[in-house]
Amino acid sequence: MFPQLYLRKGAERRIRAGHLWIYSNEVDTKRTPLTAFQAGEQAALIAANGKALGTVFVNPHALICGRLISRNPDQGMTPQRLSERLDVALQMRERLFERPFYRWVFGDADGLSGLVIDRFDDVVVVQVSTAGMESLRDSLVRAIQKLVHPRSIVFKNDGKMRDVEGLDSYVSAAMGELPDQLVVEENGVRFRAPLATGQKTGWFYDHRMNRRRLQAYAPGKRVLDVFSYVGGWGVQAAAAGASQVTCVDSSAQALDSVGENARLNGLDNVDTLEGDAFAVLKDLCDQKEKYDIVVLDPPALIPRRRDQKAGEQAYARLNQLGLRLLERDGLLVSASCSMHLSTDRLVDIIRGSGRRIDRFVQLLEQGHQAPDHPVIPGIPETDYIKSCFVRSLTGFL
Amino acid sequence: MFPQLYLRKGAERRIRAGHLWIYSNEVDTKRTPLTAFQAGEQAALIAANGKALGTVFVNPHALICGRLISRNPDQGMTPQRLSERLDVALQMRERLFERPFYRWVFGDADGLSGLVIDRFDDVVVVQVSTAGMESLRDSLVRAIQKLVHPRSIVFKNDGKMRDVEGLDSYVSAAMGELPDQLVVEENGVRFRAPLATGQKTGWFYDHRMNRRRLQAYAPGKRVLDVFSYVGGWGVQAAAAGASQVTCVDSSAQALDSVGENARLNGLDNVDTLEGDAFAVLKDLCDQKEKYDIVVLDPPALIPRRRDQKAGEQAYARLNQLGLRLLERDGLLVSASCSMHLSTDRLVDIIRGSGRRIDRFVQLLEQGHQAPDHPVIPGIPETDYIKSCFVRSLTGFL
Repeated sequence: MFPQLYLRKGAERRIRAGHLWIYSNEVDTKRTPLTAFQAGEQAALIAANGKALGTVFVNPHALICGRLISRNPDQGMTPQRLSERLDVALQMRERLFERPFYRWVFGDADGLSGLVIDRFDDVVVVQVSTAGMESLRDSLVRAIQKLVHPRSIVFKNDGKMRDVEGLDSYVSAAMGELPDQLVVEENGVRFRAPLATGQKTGWFYDHRMNRRRLQAYAPGKRVLDVFSYVGGWGVQAAAAGASQVTCVDSSAQALDSVGENARLNGLDNVDTLEGDAFAVLKDLCDQKEKYDIVVLDPPALIPRRRDQKAGEQAYARLNQLGLRLLERDGLLVSASCSMHLSTDRLVDIIRGSGRRIDRFVQLLEQGHQAPDHPVIPGIPETDYIKSCFVRSLTGFL
Repeated sequence: MFPQLYLRKGAERRIRAGHLWIYSNEVDTKRTPLTAFQAGEQAALIAANGKALGTVFVNPHALICGRLISRNPDQGMTPQRLSERLDVALQMRERLFERPFYRWVFGDADGLSGLVIDRFDDVVVVQVSTAGMESLRDSLVRAIQKLVHPRSIVFKNDGKMRDVEGLDSYVSAAMGELPDQLVVEENGVRFRAPLATGQKTGWFYDHRMNRRRLQAYAPGKRVLDVFSYVGGWGVQAAAAGASQVTCVDSSAQALDSVGENARLNGLDNVDTLEGDAFAVLKDLCDQKEKYDIVVLDPPALIPRRRDQKAGEQAYARLNQLGLRLLERDGLLVSASCSMHLSTDRLVDIIRGSGRRIDRFVQLLEQGHQAPDHPVIPGIPETDYIKSCFVRSLTGFL
């Protein structure tokens, strides 16, 4: 039996509704002091009325001090259960993706709080962000080996969350070699991306389906890919037949990768512009440059709730610049990975930007994160990617 | 110059924000009585402060008494402009769809208020729902002929809106023959659908992309297609390799078409159940039937704002029945065409249904209407289709 962790009255409501996180101010610390728990320990979660809610990983030092593992209070996380959940997650990806390139595990959304796994064929990149999951590290490595027989298992354990959980920061191979670069295949296009020095696991599979949709619009078009990173959107547009692609990013290293990725796919029509995206877009406007397609995929411009207003203003400036750079019949692909920006707000920002400069805008498609990043209704934090495919017409209405 | 139609103070705000409709209570009828206008007449729309907002089609008898045609008060709808807008709409569809089967014109969203055109190869089905558009009927037929050289142009002018606008109800060919049946191709699958006796134009292209996504999940699966109409979802699932498909509908005629459409694609694993969907689902639950995939695509269960509560309850009942009929690892495709049901509300209904019967639900994909049904930000009425692809796991967490 696990030790018990009691909630304050009413705090069970969010959990019953579908969420899996417990905040430290929701714990009845008089009854069950958090200080009695080790980081990563498992506990039975109990509502104030004495009803058991399930099992949690506890970390007394973190704001999110409990993470629900099971709705059964006798059922903790064991090596066996970890392996089963990895398998359930794998089955869905194997069904939906032809090739072994995908996010295999998306944390809570796969019942594996604190764990992210991206798969790049026979290289598996793992991010552990909680003490609870860290305690299962060895079992995790064994389960991954058993399920997919990889060449390398890399722990890219350098995320910000680890510090919060009292975990150290490192990148190393738990099995096989630590590759410098990842080899990625997405929508039939090949990429190389830096691993140790790259963002997150090195690649963002979350926009995969939105990039695929872009392919339908790209043939024969001039494309501007803003915040390009290593060229996920731009190189795929070029591979789909865009006449010319320009990738904009502030990182020289990322733009070097763009060039390499274009060559890797036999493309000679992808060029790059290094600089702050807002400044570059403004310059292009001043130079009266026009594109058929502008892709805006900025980093989260609303990192925290308190940045809401400034962040929304930044999205508005960005989208207005994007619309200005379009031909009379052009396509704006406006993406956001801010959890704090709802699709409705993004669409409204595009509406406002369009009205301000008198464009007739048609929202043709609304894209979301790919199915290897499931959303859990009841955990709004799992729903973060959105993309709007907007046709902009000048002088139409 | 056009006669003037003055708005009351403040009523210009919605129009400036992007909407195109004027309600009769927004008109300054003291200054410009609606009774002075003929149904279908064009007018310059003027804000209370005297600033011109554009040109509208006026119908003094309708609740929506004005429909913005242009934001230029001197620019009315002419045969030339009608033809240009049809062409702008056509260009986008021709770019995105390989074969000539799509909604060519989606009313306001294509700058053509009161006009819907669906294209079925060389048969063009037109629905006119406003007096303004009716006044351009002959120009419309000529423009369609010039742009796509069809074999038949059919007016399916039997919608409810015509009555409101004081227009008569009829179905007839303006050019060529009036076919009994439409021949449709969607996502590579062929269908026949009734025309004169069918719903709307006879076919619903709006779920096209959602049906395509279903194909990725279908191979080897048992599928239940609820509210199947002529089999759009079910027959496409069978064509994609589903092991067995059952279509449920209350219309014997629609189910006859399902059988015909299965045969048309050489499929012998599609059967049908006639009856009220709620009753049929309940029976299947009682019989402990299980499916790998359940598709719910009901008619609008919230037809009017005042039906909100009862409608949401109906969606909840339906989704709960759907989840109950799934195997331990199953897929629920939950669609809605109710403008009054937001995606967020639908997701929340699914969340609640899942929690009530203790399923772990992962929202894998969120689908919307296809790009031949553009959404105009600022006209919420243009955004109506949503679909949620939900994996449901039993005994998982």
